[in-house]
Amino acid sequence: YGKNTIKFLRLHKEGKKQFVKEVEVCAHLRLTSPQEYLEGNNSLVIPTDTIKNIVLVLAKKNGIPSLEQFAIDICNHFMTTFCQVAYVKAYVQEVPWQRLHEDGVPHIHSFICVPDGIRFCEAEQCRNGPLIVFAGIKDLKLMKTTQSGFEGFYKNEHTTLPERHDRILCGEFFCKWSYGECKDFDFNCIWKKIRECILEAFAGPPDCGEYSPSYQKTVNCIQMLVLSRVPQVQVIEVVLNNTFYNVVDMKNLGLTNDKEVLVPVETPYGSCACTLGRKTFFEA
Amino acid sequence: YGKNTIKFLRLHKEGKKQFVKEVEVCAHLRLTSPQEYLEGNNSLVIPTDTIKNIVLVLAKKNGIPSLEQFAIDICNHFMTTFCQVAYVKAYVQEVPWQRLHEDGVPHIHSFICVPDGIRFCEAEQCRNGPLIVFAGIKDLKLMKTTQSGFEGFYKNEHTTLPERHDRILCGEFFCKWSYGECKDFDFNCIWKKIRECILEAFAGPPDCGEYSPSYQKTVNCIQMLVLSRVPQVQVIEVVLNNTFYNVVDMKNLGLTNDKEVLVPVETPYGSCACTLGRKTFFEA
Amino acid sequence: YGKNTIKFLRLHKEGKKQFVKEVEVCAHLRLTSPQEYLEGNNSLVIPTDTIKNIVLVLAKKNGIPSLEQFAIDICNHFMTTFCQVAYVKAYVQEVPWQRLHEDGVPHIHSFICVPDGIRFCEAEQCRNGPLIVFAGIKDLKLMKTTQSGFEGFYKNEHTTLPERHDRILCGEFFCKWSYGECKDFDFNCIWKKIRECILEAFAGPPDCGEYSPSYQKTVNCIQMLVLSRVPQVQVIEVVLNNTFYNVVDMKNLGLTNDKEVLVPVETPYGSCACTLGRKTFFEA
Amino acid sequence: YGKNTIKFLRLHKEGKKQFVKEVEVCAHLRLTSPQEYLEGNNSLVIPTDTIKNIVLVLAKKNGIPSLEQFAIDICNHFMTTFCQVAYVKAYVQEVPWQRLHEDGVPHIHSFICVPDGIRFCEAEQCRNGPLIVFAGIKDLKLMKTTQSGFEGFYKNEHTTLPERHDRILCGEFFCKWSYGECKDFDFNCIWKKIRECILEAFAGPPDCGEYSPSYQKTVNCIQMLVLSRVPQVQVIEVVLNNTFYNVVDMKNLGLTNDKEVLVPVETPYGSCACTLGRKTFFEA
Repeated sequence: YGKNTIKFLRLHKEGKKQFVKEVEVCAHLRLTSPQEYLEGNNSLVIPTDTIKNIVLVLAKKNGIPSLEQFAIDICNHFMTTFCQVAYVKAYVQEVPWQRLHEDGVPHIHSFICVPDGIRFCEAEQCRNGPLIVFAGIKDLKLMKTTQSGFEGFYKNEHTTLPERHDRILCGEFFCKWSYGECKDFDFNCIWKKIRECILEAFAGPPDCGEYSPSYQKTVNCIQMLVLSRVPQVQVIEVVLNNTFYNVVDMKNLGLTNDKEVLVPVETPYGSCACTLGRKTFFEA
Repeated sequence: YGKNTIKFLRLHKEGKKQFVKEVEVCAHLRLTSPQEYLEGNNSLVIPTDTIKNIVLVLAKKNGIPSLEQFAIDICNHFMTTFCQVAYVKAYVQEVPWQRLHEDGVPHIHSFICVPDGIRFCEAEQCRNGPLIVFAGIKDLKLMKTTQSGFEGFYKNEHTTLPERHDRILCGEFFCKWSYGECKDFDFNCIWKKIRECILEAFAGPPDCGEYSPSYQKTVNCIQMLVLSRVPQVQVIEVVLNNTFYNVVDMKNLGLTNDKEVLVPVETPYGSCACTLGRKTFFEA
Repeated sequence: YGKNTIKFLRLHKEGKKQFVKEVEVCAHLRLTSPQEYLEGNNSLVIPTDTIKNIVLVLAKKNGIPSLEQFAIDICNHFMTTFCQVAYVKAYVQEVPWQRLHEDGVPHIHSFICVPDGIRFCEAEQCRNGPLIVFAGIKDLKLMKTTQSGFEGFYKNEHTTLPERHDRILCGEFFCKWSYGECKDFDFNCIWKKIRECILEAFAGPPDCGEYSPSYQKTVNCIQMLVLSRVPQVQVIEVVLNNTFYNVVDMKNLGLTNDKEVLVPVETPYGSCACTLGRKTFFEA
Repeated sequence: YGKNTIKFLRLHKEGKKQFVKEVEVCAHLRLTSPQEYLEGNNSLVIPTDTIKNIVLVLAKKNGIPSLEQFAIDICNHFMTTFCQVAYVKAYVQEVPWQRLHEDGVPHIHSFICVPDGIRFCEAEQCRNGPLIVFAGIKDLKLMKTTQSGFEGFYKNEHTTLPERHDRILCGEFFCKWSYGECKDFDFNCIWKKIRECILEAFAGPPDCGEYSPSYQKTVNCIQMLVLSRVPQVQVIEVVLNNTFYNVVDMKNLGLTNDKEVLVPVETPYGSCACTLGRKTFFEA
């Protein structure tokens, strides 16, 4: 297969108010015949340059009402225009520009980049198959400074980790979910709702939080809340890359460190991941 | 000289409410004698490991009320404790953890990382010299989608750039300023005020903006506004790493692109910088 | 599943001569029950910290005669020690330390890091399934300054790319292959042989090279040569991330640029990939 | 001032044999008047785009016989062409393409990227001042697995580091030196000679090495050897970013680890730097 990445800006105006979307689009294509690999026959090959032109023309003509709709437009274009395309996947990722505010007043044409979790989506289709749409958030860094522990794990002669009932829970989340039949979805609204679910399930109630017995359970709580609140989600995958923090031992320095000063442990670096769907569950 | 970098977390509680600061500290030391370089005599050398311990002990004992105060504490400690230290500089940078909110309610112990500009500061001192404090913001990405141009520049036989009166102004800012005699400054409050000045001078009034004739003039506007609004600032340096965007030419594709689709130009990559002080001005 | 990454150094001596391997090991485990996700029951969970200890103990006891043997050792240990492990994968990657030479004389204990392609391997096993071993090279950057073109591709109204018969072929290769039943393989020797095949197939004969009609065909040539020369390889995957270079148009500057000065095109960024096995072929 | 970065490829042929240089050039300019900052008057500003054109035209016309000569050409061009330029600095850095060899035979047009230390140079000039040329190597990673220690350092109540007489010495070097009056220097030849000096001073004799009592002393040894062997060098600056490795304590795991397994310590991260010139010495 071949893929390629294009980054561009799409502007539009409503009156004098300006709107901006900066996206990175990656299109994957697989052709019905591998003759360009085996025989060096390029007659069916759609050059990277042409793919770039098509993506830019679609952005110009249709705009980017949502990342998902734009990914769907790309899939549709390749499937209907090129009979040599056997499979197409369009990945779209957003640069998180947010409108600037001055004393609460939104600015008509100025923006600031706020990367507190990156929105992305994916649409894919095999010829004669259904169009499947995924959406997600990545690079979302969250931390709980209490209400987290890890106890009762398996132990043998290689175990040196002590049990802990009040540690830091910190990590970078990657969440990706699939939609079912996506007729007239308000993708922007659903995405915001899911992001809120993720934060709520991670943190628990604002006044007291909720105890997490492991990274794995927190991953599961996020999945359960999203599936229960957002009926459009069919399956949700969550990957959590942990950052561990150790309380610094200050006994040699004559001090008692009551979980006040901690250092990140860069090695080993752990991650846990789970995929959860409706009805039936499967762990990857 | 020697320097080293330490990253750690400082937690504290007020009742049940938790507060967190994650900082990266880099301490530079220069000794009165270079004998460890010339003779391999280590008797005056303060090991990296000891420096780390001192920074952690200071964080434990004093907390981090502001980055600036913590940097000052570090300088003071080294100057008063080690007579072999001729010069000390402490650089402190913050990981931008922000308290999570659920429906507007702040969470007592959960945080999200929001890197929309990184706060840092620097304190430095030579033995028998004054303690100088700098503060700043870096990795601040801003964009104006209109009200920016570049015309009337110098032209010769190597000029191919057309004049433009409606281009995108986009870039990453690095701003660093020095404080004068810093007695009882509220460093946190001043820093927020300066950040607002930078955004306001970049963007102009929210309803109409302000035309920028060049990156250089925008840099100068920021400096002028900060100096006029914040009397504690003595000198301010601004570096702007530009991202250029070109309107895609779609004539060959049969379309008129009215500044709707633009692509970033990754080469050449430009930057402009200026340092502005009170009374006298100097360009670096 | 869970995974984690550990980086460490393994030294050994033969007489006074020192040998070093610095590796990054990533172990993935999937357990027979997902109870830690669903119920917060940690009783089967093997902590990251324990996995780290096991990897270090294996390195201490067995050494790292080859990356592949070490990955096999890790798989074997987890499968035979923990009955709750349903699946294990060990990824091992090398930091490319090479012995220093002074006037051709090898140094007994000094090394330089030479990252001209990174060696890695992977061993994986499901309970009751075979142990499968992969090896590979990544981050291998190669360039041909001539003997490369791209012509006869598919054209339509979105095509703007001109045909070229003398372009630069440049890119970063990722190659990964699987071994069949790996009894008593000399993994180090085979890996070196495959690396030579990749370079030879890319470059062609040293005195004249060989014309490449496309990135895809070059990928295929590499695969064909490896499969024909190295009987231990069962399947080989090659991914090529292209860097395009454009000849700078200097007409406006009054000069004729005869493919002397070229600039990299950073967007769009393309890649092509193919997986080729024995007997039957399949394109991913 | 303003600066900008351009990356490009310069090819040339001798008969059928092809040669390639890929460089990144960064030109800094300071103008005689800051009117573009203060008044928004662009009439003296040389746009980034024009600077790019000039660099490419110089590469086309003169080629790149050495990085240093190319940097000198750039300085000369700006000083002689633009009377509004008060200061110019040209930084040139090389992508380390090396000719491929097959069984010892050099290939006529194929190259591999081997980043074992990156060559760079800098030329700078103030109007009416001398042209000063610097050269250097960066990202050079070296390791000694024995013959290194750190003892006899300053101790107080914050000291926890034990003395060690057989540790790993590992780090990334940045070395930069200035040439005096550079008439007819063979910059390529001198650079290779200095690189060899750095490796030799770091490693010591190949059969036994030389004991290093500290990072600082190793830095000094490199500087002394370069100054003694290469008369064209006036001043040399060396920065060493250390990577520390700790011997893993395996007592709890029932094993004796005789400096066989070590892990990198990522925090604190130290660096030491020194600048050494002829006759008089000064430490920065």
